[in-house]
Amino acid sequence: MASESGKLWGGRFVGSVDPIMEKFNSSIAYDRNLWEVDIQGSKAYSKGLQKAGLLTKAEMDRILQGLDKVAEEWAQGTFKLHPNDEDIHTANERRLKELIGDTAGKLHTGRSRNDQVVTDLRLWMRQTCSALSAHLRELIRSMVDRAEAERDVLFPGYTHLQRAQPIRWSHWILSHAVALTRDSERLLEVQKRINVLPLGSGAIAGNPLGVDRELLRTELNFGAITLNSMDATSERDFVAEFLFWASLCMTHLSRMAEDLILYGTKEFSFVQLSDAYSTGSSLMPQKKNPDSLELIRSKAGRVFGREDKEAVFEVADTMSAVLQVTTGVISTLQIHRENMAHALSPDMLATDLAYYLVRKGMPFRQAHEASGKAVFMAETKGVALNQLTLQELQTISPLFAGDVSKVWDYGHSVEQYGALGGTARSSVDWQIGQVRALLRAQQA
Amino acid sequence: MASESGKLWGGRFVGSVDPIMEKFNSSIAYDRNLWEVDIQGSKAYSKGLQKAGLLTKAEMDRILQGLDKVAEEWAQGTFKLHPNDEDIHTANERRLKELIGDTAGKLHTGRSRNDQVVTDLRLWMRQTCSALSAHLRELIRSMVDRAEAERDVLFPGYTHLQRAQPIRWSHWILSHAVALTRDSERLLEVQKRINVLPLGSGAIAGNPLGVDRELLRTELNFGAITLNSMDATSERDFVAEFLFWASLCMTHLSRMAEDLILYGTKEFSFVQLSDAYSTGSSLMPQKKNPDSLELIRSKAGRVFGREDKEAVFEVADTMSAVLQVTTGVISTLQIHRENMAHALSPDMLATDLAYYLVRKGMPFRQAHEASGKAVFMAETKGVALNQLTLQELQTISPLFAGDVSKVWDYGHSVEQYGALGGTARSSVDWQIGQVRALLRAQQA
Amino acid sequence: MASESGKLWGGRFVGSVDPIMEKFNSSIAYDRNLWEVDIQGSKAYSKGLQKAGLLTKAEMDRILQGLDKVAEEWAQGTFKLHPNDEDIHTANERRLKELIGDTAGKLHTGRSRNDQVVTDLRLWMRQTCSALSAHLRELIRSMVDRAEAERDVLFPGYTHLQRAQPIRWSHWILSHAVALTRDSERLLEVQKRINVLPLGSGAIAGNPLGVDRELLRTELNFGAITLNSMDATSERDFVAEFLFWASLCMTHLSRMAEDLILYGTKEFSFVQLSDAYSTGSSLMPQKKNPDSLELIRSKAGRVFGREDKEAVFEVADTMSAVLQVTTGVISTLQIHRENMAHALSPDMLATDLAYYLVRKGMPFRQAHEASGKAVFMAETKGVALNQLTLQELQTISPLFAGDVSKVWDYGHSVEQYGALGGTARSSVDWQIGQVRALLRAQQA
Amino acid sequence: MASESGKLWGGRFVGSVDPIMEKFNSSIAYDRNLWEVDIQGSKAYSKGLQKAGLLTKAEMDRILQGLDKVAEEWAQGTFKLHPNDEDIHTANERRLKELIGDTAGKLHTGRSRNDQVVTDLRLWMRQTCSALSAHLRELIRSMVDRAEAERDVLFPGYTHLQRAQPIRWSHWILSHAVALTRDSERLLEVQKRINVLPLGSGAIAGNPLGVDRELLRTELNFGAITLNSMDATSERDFVAEFLFWASLCMTHLSRMAEDLILYGTKEFSFVQLSDAYSTGSSLMPQKKNPDSLELIRSKAGRVFGREDKEAVFEVADTMSAVLQVTTGVISTLQIHRENMAHALSPDMLATDLAYYLVRKGMPFRQAHEASGKAVFMAETKGVALNQLTLQELQTISPLFAGDVSKVWDYGHSVEQYGALGGTARSSVDWQIGQVRALLRAQQA
Repeated sequence: MASESGKLWGGRFVGSVDPIMEKFNSSIAYDRNLWEVDIQGSKAYSKGLQKAGLLTKAEMDRILQGLDKVAEEWAQGTFKLHPNDEDIHTANERRLKELIGDTAGKLHTGRSRNDQVVTDLRLWMRQTCSALSAHLRELIRSMVDRAEAERDVLFPGYTHLQRAQPIRWSHWILSHAVALTRDSERLLEVQKRINVLPLGSGAIAGNPLGVDRELLRTELNFGAITLNSMDATSERDFVAEFLFWASLCMTHLSRMAEDLILYGTKEFSFVQLSDAYSTGSSLMPQKKNPDSLELIRSKAGRVFGREDKEAVFEVADTMSAVLQVTTGVISTLQIHRENMAHALSPDMLATDLAYYLVRKGMPFRQAHEASGKAVFMAETKGVALNQLTLQELQTISPLFAGDVSKVWDYGHSVEQYGALGGTARSSVDWQIGQVRALLRAQQA
Repeated sequence: MASESGKLWGGRFVGSVDPIMEKFNSSIAYDRNLWEVDIQGSKAYSKGLQKAGLLTKAEMDRILQGLDKVAEEWAQGTFKLHPNDEDIHTANERRLKELIGDTAGKLHTGRSRNDQVVTDLRLWMRQTCSALSAHLRELIRSMVDRAEAERDVLFPGYTHLQRAQPIRWSHWILSHAVALTRDSERLLEVQKRINVLPLGSGAIAGNPLGVDRELLRTELNFGAITLNSMDATSERDFVAEFLFWASLCMTHLSRMAEDLILYGTKEFSFVQLSDAYSTGSSLMPQKKNPDSLELIRSKAGRVFGREDKEAVFEVADTMSAVLQVTTGVISTLQIHRENMAHALSPDMLATDLAYYLVRKGMPFRQAHEASGKAVFMAETKGVALNQLTLQELQTISPLFAGDVSKVWDYGHSVEQYGALGGTARSSVDWQIGQVRALLRAQQA
Repeated sequence: MASESGKLWGGRFVGSVDPIMEKFNSSIAYDRNLWEVDIQGSKAYSKGLQKAGLLTKAEMDRILQGLDKVAEEWAQGTFKLHPNDEDIHTANERRLKELIGDTAGKLHTGRSRNDQVVTDLRLWMRQTCSALSAHLRELIRSMVDRAEAERDVLFPGYTHLQRAQPIRWSHWILSHAVALTRDSERLLEVQKRINVLPLGSGAIAGNPLGVDRELLRTELNFGAITLNSMDATSERDFVAEFLFWASLCMTHLSRMAEDLILYGTKEFSFVQLSDAYSTGSSLMPQKKNPDSLELIRSKAGRVFGREDKEAVFEVADTMSAVLQVTTGVISTLQIHRENMAHALSPDMLATDLAYYLVRKGMPFRQAHEASGKAVFMAETKGVALNQLTLQELQTISPLFAGDVSKVWDYGHSVEQYGALGGTARSSVDWQIGQVRALLRAQQA
Repeated sequence: MASESGKLWGGRFVGSVDPIMEKFNSSIAYDRNLWEVDIQGSKAYSKGLQKAGLLTKAEMDRILQGLDKVAEEWAQGTFKLHPNDEDIHTANERRLKELIGDTAGKLHTGRSRNDQVVTDLRLWMRQTCSALSAHLRELIRSMVDRAEAERDVLFPGYTHLQRAQPIRWSHWILSHAVALTRDSERLLEVQKRINVLPLGSGAIAGNPLGVDRELLRTELNFGAITLNSMDATSERDFVAEFLFWASLCMTHLSRMAEDLILYGTKEFSFVQLSDAYSTGSSLMPQKKNPDSLELIRSKAGRVFGREDKEAVFEVADTMSAVLQVTTGVISTLQIHRENMAHALSPDMLATDLAYYLVRKGMPFRQAHEASGKAVFMAETKGVALNQLTLQELQTISPLFAGDVSKVWDYGHSVEQYGALGGTARSSVDWQIGQVRALLRAQQA
């Protein structure tokens, strides 16, 4: 008789179960992560049952002590899984029964496994998201610190991987830090929706035994109570939201990693990764590969498009490692200031040359065309843009005068971008202040 | 000379462009949706240029009037696209130049196309999300109204497509309505992040001409200003968030549609779709297919996993249609109360039978086993569960007594589920009140 | 010094490695599946080195014996992983060195880890795909057997979940079996592309030491040799193809499972799942859930969109279980012939009614309209379609005559569909023969 | 009455249809691409009906002539769509009826719309895939031609974006060309499965009117006939396969584009894109962006994860443009041989240095370590690897002797890689021959 095997629905079945099917159906391999929150949830529920008169005080105490003992076994690594423990909830209840006898059978009164699974998952995700939030803010903080310290380093800003305009190195760091502040904000919103109590929803119709859900909420420190019992046990929006959060955050980390991989090539030589975040080649002795950065990029693929509960555990681990490794990478990265300075070239000031003409009154579209002609003239002559003579420039427009020489100063160029959000020193300082203020607000 | 063709980067190119490449690069087919917001953005920017001293008052006025004329042409359908108009921004500026001459060339001073594209997109999405918010709340409202009106209709609640417990029909409606309130909440969060001004970020370094971004923000009625110019022009988090929002909302609508398709089969016969939302078969004359519901399901696939700007336009259209069609479906759906009542069967009260024993003091696990034995006994004897005699029940447990007959009342069964979120009438009323309050709060 | 830790690139590094980074980079947890093929590959490579004069016969023999010993340890479960064994390849080589000393260091001559990883993966996938092929053909065979045995059972064919036309039960089974034959064909094509030797490609430039790749191919029994060394070590098309194969196959199994879940509901009651493939509810004693079918559906989600090497191992396991469980489900499923017969209703013969008129000479579009009117008339009168009197039918068309009564025979209806691929008995027999022939051809 | 509107299921409906729903359900916007194949299919089917005795010869001729007239209108752009034409099939039949009267109503006898839709789609995809096959082979051919012509140009091979080993430029080209030959092979397999006739399957049960499917197959030149009518009308495996093919092919093109974008940066300066495949910036006059390459990369995202019929049309267009643009890019690309040569540096010969020691008898693992020490010594001393003196090298290993100087020759280095698939000239020639042979075989 299958009922002897202790399966939860033992009373009815007469056939035996296909062993492949049994293994297929088992979730114990990954949901053992939930052991602690499962016990928390059961302790709260037994208090609810006692208040509702379904457990005596003595029975409740026996259950609470039994659950503490189960928790102790997990914490000490002495808990033994049985082959029939198909999930963590079955395992804990089976062990409780061994420890305290039939009273254990009262714990599940009016509670469905769906109820229990979703409560446990929310409890676990709540604590996990807290930790991820902290790791993420730590990363942003290390980026802002670095941005502040290296504010006066200029290097090329790229678009389409082509050199575009001179910018501050800190401006680049902050562009990524600002993106991460949005991830931090979004994670807080997800946490708010995770922090809602489903327990007390039964299978679908609700709880018929007068359990006080407000008491359960207080016991488990949730911010609110789910509104509808059918929705409560089946919805996993918060899982989808968490996975989407992780995808977007990984996209940001992945883009930063991609830039750093490029900046670390022999050809760019702007930055050098610490040995602690590099690896070598089993074949080529000279190689030093930016494996930490490549792993960050490749882990992005592992985060996208996952949909199940198993994904939550794996993605949470990945995010935790990635955030900490990225913090390490950023903190230990060396920059090569002279290479950065060397990579700035006069053609990157072609926009400034157009603005020079705009300031003399030429409409921008014409100024853009005129500056483009200067670039073409320089290319044709095989000289740098700032080596064209005034005479040559005047063949393009009579507005060019002696003061055009002031255009060719990179420091002067970046200082023009003083509007909020730009790369002038004042604006970079403003950004640093804004991100710091956001961090303080999000931490509170 | 390519420069004669009026391309924006005309000054420099000497080769001609592969025509396949040109078509490939063109976005005009889908971004013409942006005509109105593009003009709004340009009007605000010309005011910024005037304040910064880069346009005289007269020049600004000429530009503003010219832009109004362009808008009028679009509104009246008389705007003519040229083959060289590769995007909406080029088209509008080209037309402006035709109308007001070279002054038009000053409008783009200090503004990059990236700047302009992302500003337009945010303006467009802001107004689109407002409309979608309203459609979504309208749908929720129609569901709550229906739930209120049909509160006393009972029918089977299903899990795993097997009949599980009797519930109120309104409980089912509310389980879906509650899910949609989360979508409504999330959409507000997305809107908050869309509503941030990027204009004034230039290509990557920022704006070097003293344009006052706070003035631009006020002109365009944005809630905040982007913090970093590189991030501002390249990030599309808000697009990803919008698409994710649409995916999750479609998942909810799709699940509801799936239930309704099933409830509308000959075999279930719980509901009947209005002819306005059905279609027939070109081959089989008797067929009446729930095409509206199937389209809702299939459109879900069209929403998932899209990533680009084109997706935004298509997904926004889809969501708008789906939300309105669903509202129509829900408002016109007929229900068959007698079939619903008829589908309730005594075995769905097996949980109540277990609770009967629990109330007599038996631990739930044993009560579950005892009730399971009763189900098995009834199946074996070929009778309904409520037709087992008291004597027969007592062979399973001596706790069964004459009052067991009270278990077999579906109305009594649902009224037990009085805990918050359950299917008792009081709890359903509470849910209706909560969802109405949420709608009011979200509308404000 | 990091070099003391035995890392493969030990000679150069001076910093120590962040432990999170180290764990992050390690793949040993999942690639231990490759132990056997890794040893196969190394044995073949050492023969290649010997032929190229880079190993003496004695050295080669020592390596071969050492590798056999390593294999024995794995097979007997005595192989001990070290914390520094970051992947299976490192682990095996580390152990070999412990067993046979410095000669082990010659084994990797001219071979890169990329070379080795992709060779191992192809070897592993080749044997895995063979096993999956066999499981898949076994499933198809059980379906065809069942189709043959139950050829005379009629039941409703559905479109849009609405009853459409009477069909044979075997026709439904074969519609799924035929889809699976395409999966079987596609798997053979994937196997062909997996079965290509990459070994001898080095890191990117190829093998510089005269290793004979034809010898390696023969040793490892590959069908062909990769053409370009850069492509060979980096391409994972065969992984993408395998995962796509799995997705499509799961889509087919998932659709069949979905139909069976529906056919097994109380409302349909066409089939009954064996207890061996069902589970119960922890709360509701009467429930018997089609968990095997639901797992098949939900596993589909686990297969879609995976992209990495880890996915291969997990997806292969999933497919193996799913194919075997489905075979079990199909073999043990009970069908309720009387319920199937009972579900056939006269309106499903509306198409036949139209064909009746077509045979009397009416164009199909008019006949479709006429039959639709008959359906509407029957609905309005509240009678079954076959209960309309001849007189009533003649108000719709004078072509109706006494022989219309022959239309109302379900057996006669299905026998009309004698064109190849239809649901007539002769056509079903033809299908059975075709699928059997395909199975024989694919096995060969 | 809805029936007056000419809807195909007109006879039965009494409600009117929600206009949003109607628009939502309409597919005419994208399936007008099918006009030609729809007419082909209908012509074949009318021949089938005539052979089955359901059309007289005269009726068939009238239908064939009518259909030719409809085709002529489409070809000349004079076909007028009506608001009620919800799809191309309805439109063509509606027009046919206007042209030839009621006989048109006989054309759909025994054919369902599902039948027709899938037949049309297969016909359209067959011709589209033929064209894509040709474009793809043209691209491969242009790559092989280039590889042959520039066989003697050496440049750095990269792994992890770090300089790894010297290789031939042709070796890089061929690594991408070889990947594309697999796409070409896979496309042939997809075409084989597209080329199967579904027509004659009816809605689900098959064709009941004796239509000869073998005649239909011959008329439409299909390679085989679908086996089961239910599967035939519902399966879209070939669509999924085509989209997967496009995804994988785009992955390959995208990777090549990524390499070329990098090689075209100022920092690498290996290649220069033709002006015909570049664009400029609306703000920065000096910019010349590799837009064709970036579009190829970004289009990849548009191809992935699409699932519906609309996707087929869009993806087919994208692939057609991408393949042709890539052919253009490759044919017109300029390479900078001197920059390529200049980028080769002695540390890229560290592997050769290790092999030098291997040839003197040192096990590879020790040689790798020794070469790594030489790299470290050179870095520490701030000299190039080939500038270490023999004396210095001998402090690392006494095996170093005067002949070590021969290691520092890039040409000699690549010539070592003579094993099949390597970068030696003989092996590159072999690859060129192999790819050419494949092209010839695939074309046949």
